[in-house]
Order: sequence, then C-alpha cells, then structure tokens
Amino acid sequence: MKIAVVAPSCTLSREAADLLEVLVDRRGDCEVAIHPQCFLSDGHFAGDDEARLSALREVMGDPAVDAVWFARGGYGSNRIAEQAASNLPDAARSKLYFGYSDAGFLQAGFHKAGLDVAWGPMPQDLKRDGGEAAVTRALDWMVKRDPSALEPGLDMPAMAFNLTVFATLLGTVLEPDLGGVDLLIEDVSEHHYRIDRTMFHVTASANVRKVARLRLGRVGDIPANDPDFGRDEVAIVKEWCERSGINYGGRADIGHDVFNRVVPFAR
Amino acid sequence: MKIAVVAPSCTLSREAADLLEVLVDRRGDCEVAIHPQCFLSDGHFAGDDEARLSALREVMGDPAVDAVWFARGGYGSNRIAEQAASNLPDAARSKLYFGYSDAGFLQAGFHKAGLDVAWGPMPQDLKRDGGEAAVTRALDWMVKRDPSALEPGLDMPAMAFNLTVFATLLGTVLEPDLGGVDLLIEDVSEHHYRIDRTMFHVTASANVRKVARLRLGRVGDIPANDPDFGRDEVAIVKEWCERSGINYGGRADIGHDVFNRVVPFAR
Repeated sequence: MKIAVVAPSCTLSREAADLLEVLVDRRGDCEVAIHPQCFLSDGHFAGDDEARLSALREVMGDPAVDAVWFARGGYGSNRIAEQAASNLPDAARSKLYFGYSDAGFLQAGFHKAGLDVAWGPMPQDLKRDGGEAAVTRALDWMVKRDPSALEPGLDMPAMAFNLTVFATLLGTVLEPDLGGVDLLIEDVSEHHYRIDRTMFHVTASANVRKVARLRLGRVGDIPANDPDFGRDEVAIVKEWCERSGINYGGRADIGHDVFNRVVPFAR
Repeated sequence: MKIAVVAPSCTLSREAADLLEVLVDRRGDCEVAIHPQCFLSDGHFAGDDEARLSALREVMGDPAVDAVWFARGGYGSNRIAEQAASNLPDAARSKLYFGYSDAGFLQAGFHKAGLDVAWGPMPQDLKRDGGEAAVTRALDWMVKRDPSALEPGLDMPAMAFNLTVFATLLGTVLEPDLGGVDLLIEDVSEHHYRIDRTMFHVTASANVRKVARLRLGRVGDIPANDPDFGRDEVAIVKEWCERSGINYGGRADIGHDVFNRVVPFAR
C-alpha cells in the first residue's frame, strides 16, 4: 500500500517526518511518500494556496497512491478545499483521505463529492508524548482495516469533526448532508464560553438537527474562563442538544490527543 | 429621557456603574436607571438566563423607558435573544436598543423584529483609559442625536457587528436581511488565522453577498500568530471580499476601544 503525505494546512515538522519514516520502515507493510510540499512555509501555511493545492491535486490524481494522509492540522485547508474537490480525476475516487482537525474542511467537501474519507491520527501526532501509538493506530487502519483502531461505539453512517472547523464549514459549499449521521465532535484550546457560543450556532442548523445523534469527544487544553464558566463541556453540549431537539448520544473516543481513534465517514 | 441599563451578557462592574452615575448627574440631560440585574453573577453571566431575560423584558415593556442600554459585552446575550425578540409588547417598539459586541445577537434579532437599534459605546467602556469620551459620545447620540457621534462614512441602511458574533448568528433565527446594507465589522482578541477562517465562513453566505459593501473597523488586541500569519486583517478582509464578489468599502471608525462611534441600524 502506498500512502502519500501532503500538508494542506500548516508545515510538517522534520522531526515528525523522520519519526514516521523510521516507524514505517520497521512495520514493512506499507510505503509512505512524504511530499516535499509538507516542508514549505509561507506565513502561517505549508506553502501558498497554489503550492498546497497543487501537491494535493498531484497525489489525488496519482493512480499509484492508495491513500492521501494529511500531515497535520493547524489552519488553512478551507482556503483550497472547494478547488480540491472540483473536477475530480478518476484516480481520486479509488483512494482514502485520512486525517482530522483542520483537515475536516477537505474531508467534508471530499465526502460530499463521493470520496472515501476517514478521521484519525496524523504524522504530526508523532511529536506528542506517546504519539507513536496514535500513528500506529492510523496505519493499522489504513493498511489492515484493523477494527481495534475504530472508535468503539460507531453507528454508521458516522462523521467526526473538530467543532470549530465544523461550525465554520456550515453554510459553505463544503457542508455535507448530515441526515441520519452519528456525528462526533471534539475541540481543543477553546474557552468554555466559545464552546457554548459555537454550539448555539451549530445546533441552529436544520441540517445538523437531522443527525441521528451527536456525541462529544474530548475537549482538550481549555483556557481558564474568568470567572469560571459555571458548566463544563458535557453540560454545554447536552443543553444545546436539548434546546434544539438533537439526540445527545454521550461521549466519543476522539480528540486532539494520542488516544484519538478512527472514524470512517461511510455511506 | 430615561435610559435603562441591563446586562444580557456579563456582569457590569460597580466602578463603571458609579462613574456612569457621576457622568449622568453632571450632564443633567437624561436619567439613567441601572437595573440591579447588572450586578448579578452566575458563572460567566450576569445572572442565569431567566434573570437576564426577565430584566431585559421588564425594561422593554416599560413605557417610561426611552432607551435600553446594554451594560457591556462579554458573552451570553445569544442564549436569551430569541425569547427576548418574541411576543413583543407595544412599549418595546417605541424605544432604542443601544450597545455593541456581544449585544449584536440581540441587535440583529431586534432589528429583524422591527425595533430601533444602534451600535455604540456601553457603560463598561468607562473602565477603559479615556472611556468617558466614548460613553459621552453614546449619550450625546442617545439624548441629542448629535451627528458628530456617528461613524462618519455611513451610507444608510447600515449595520455594525463584531465579526465573530456576526459569524455565530448567521444561520440562526437572529440573522437579519443584509440586502443593500453598509455592513461594518470589527473584532478583538482573535488571531489572524481566526479572522481568516471567520471571513471564509461569513463570505460564503448568500445573504452576506447581498450587502452594498463591507467595511472593516479596528481589529484590536490580536494575539501573536506563530509563525507570523503573513498578512494583516486588511489584506485578509479584502481577499475574502474579492473571492466572494463582495464590494470592500475600506475602513470604518468602530472598534473595541474609546474611539468607537455610533452606527444606527436604520431601515
């Protein structure tokens, strides 16, 4: 299996790339091609929009590539997502698109365009303490479809998104049909008041109100609220589900951490 | 003229309230009634939803009140805005609703419901260095319709919003018709990458694309981007206007600062 790594958002660290190559050599069950675009830098991004789009379209159109793995999140894939999902070459339809966080913009648009996408750990996760377990889980699923890598409570069809990314893609051309979906959300580095505000926005959507259920992954690195917000993320998400008539389905085993599991966006 | 102050978001500081009373006494041209709800505290908010809604509805329904002045922003008016704008008593229709920042949720919903709203400084601004000038400007407009308080380049109809609040109310019942509007935005304490992401979301809206023009106020207290984003807020807003076919109308004299001017949401 050949996996191409590209960076539609921010620059991949050399250290993570080196660790990935060692890990893949040791496994011996797949080939990983880290596109040189991953190391470009243009302000916030891994190269300008044209460079990021061009690398992504190149691997999408390569019939030898079985999976496209997004190197890392950060911010920026939304800037090229509409073009990336347009005029798809045939070769783009026979591969998997894998990642999480900011990659959700692409994953939403690609799923909507009929491509095969899944949420799961990314190469940059190798920089986290214990990140090898996360990246091994991603590879186990990409290469062997190892069921132990999956989020354990999935009720297909499912989708997983970073909450803030999800809120931002609503109302854009990237917004997928959410009817009957097991929708998993998580977030990182957002104050409780922001989670509350974003849930207000998200649960106002008629499309979101069509999900089968909404489940909450982990919300990590929450900055201190001054004064204390008075409710945690579980209470916040439950309340907005209740206010909007959405079925709250409990917790989900995903998040910006090394325990993050795989969620295929199956039809 | 009687102005009622209520706090649909966060708690008003006693110090700002005291400074306001001194300022109003010295002017002698209006009466300001600071509702005791302004000093309640319930976690993040100036009292729970019921307390904030009840105080707001009380002053809205009071025929002796000529203007309702939102004490401050923060976060939380969205939680009560739909109910506040429903089943309006007649007395609610003969007064002005004044403030900015988080109050934008109420102002959007109230404008949509046919009420008279305007953007401008709030009592809590008295805690800023030079805040007396800002609050004096607000009173000069509320009491005397002093034209020198107005944002100087207004092309009516106009609306002004905090960008993040505006993005959050799109797709909700609070979203007003933006056709032909001179839309002024500003923001505070958001990274450049967040401004870029929010502009992507906002400019995807068919309703937003109907504005006559979009103008950018000040974006204050921008946290450092690591690495540097590579473009400032003017370049970001211009780019998204260009990408979406919105007429960028240049800068606007509003912001989270003491120079913030008045923008009436006239029809």
